[in-house]
Amino acid sequence: MYSEGMSTSERLIESTRELLWERGYVGTSPKAILERAGAGQGSMYHHFKGKPDLALAAIRRTAEEMRAVAAGVLDGPGTPYERIEAYLRRERDVLRGCPIGRLTMDPDVIDSAELRAPVDETLDWIRERIAGIVEEGKEQGQFAPSLDGEEIAAAVVATVQGGYVLARASGSAAAFDAGVRGLLSLLAPRPA
Amino acid sequence: MYSEGMSTSERLIESTRELLWERGYVGTSPKAILERAGAGQGSMYHHFKGKPDLALAAIRRTAEEMRAVAAGVLDGPGTPYERIEAYLRRERDVLRGCPIGRLTMDPDVIDSAELRAPVDETLDWIRERIAGIVEEGKEQGQFAPSLDGEEIAAAVVATVQGGYVLARASGSAAAFDAGVRGLLSLLAPRPA
Repeated sequence: MYSEGMSTSERLIESTRELLWERGYVGTSPKAILERAGAGQGSMYHHFKGKPDLALAAIRRTAEEMRAVAAGVLDGPGTPYERIEAYLRRERDVLRGCPIGRLTMDPDVIDSAELRAPVDETLDWIRERIAGIVEEGKEQGQFAPSLDGEEIAAAVVATVQGGYVLARASGSAAAFDAGVRGLLSLLAPRPA
Repeated sequence: MYSEGMSTSERLIESTRELLWERGYVGTSPKAILERAGAGQGSMYHHFKGKPDLALAAIRRTAEEMRAVAAGVLDGPGTPYERIEAYLRRERDVLRGCPIGRLTMDPDVIDSAELRAPVDETLDWIRERIAGIVEEGKEQGQFAPSLDGEEIAAAVVATVQGGYVLARASGSAAAFDAGVRGLLSLLAPRPA
């Protein structure tokens, strides 16, 4: 599955990232990771302390990537509204769901302070970033002064995360897109 | 765990409902169901065709309950805005997540047309009900005529489902409440 040049520990991390996204932590066995990585028994314990340690490396890498992608649109050009719109509308593999958000439904991730930390920090970072942009928009008169940046940011991130739920339930990205359009129609700057 | 008067098949269904909520379908073994139900080996196959059949009975019952609770607030008294507000603000065990929405992150549920159907139908029913209320609100002049009922409904349901994700990530219901307040501040009827 992976290029010849990739080290065993890299293959283990990448396989774990994929399996966590597809099946969650509870649904991912060490055996399935080794099979997908094409790695022999014992190699997980050679490179990592075990499944939680490997999962932590995988989750941290996925979290870093997600943050970088979000920063790419949120720190891009445009008005505050346009940057929030770009975040909501950026192309996503909607039916796969969010590789970070889906972990919150995993009891073993939520029960582990260590595994939950990168999930929490990533979603929190995105919320804080959006809250700042809403405040910018208020200063510029684009958003009503009565809006609360942190509350709007929570609604924006929740619409994305809940949009995945609606899309996966219906087997179609249309429900995700509808939710995004609905939120944007409410957030649209009002004429002065 | 259950009252003496409850039949074995009832205990199996109730145990499965709890385990699906806590651990998902992938994370719920027949053994765990039997243990929680206090039922003997073989009783699952006596009453049900197997884990998928029992899970279907459990999911259908949870879906019916969720629909009845949603109808209770959405069909209640008040203006269209107040009924949507009541739906968003109704008391929830936020940190447990949604027993229906969480199943969308379960690959074995999504891959089964039969298990996915009650999940899809329930979320769809709530969206349609809210879309109708938004249209009522437009007719009454409470909401802007430019709003699309189905899009607003998708944003409302997504905010709830995504709110669970934020709450579970942060280990606190505050993030759920913030998202709800954010959406309500955007949806608030405008003075004429």
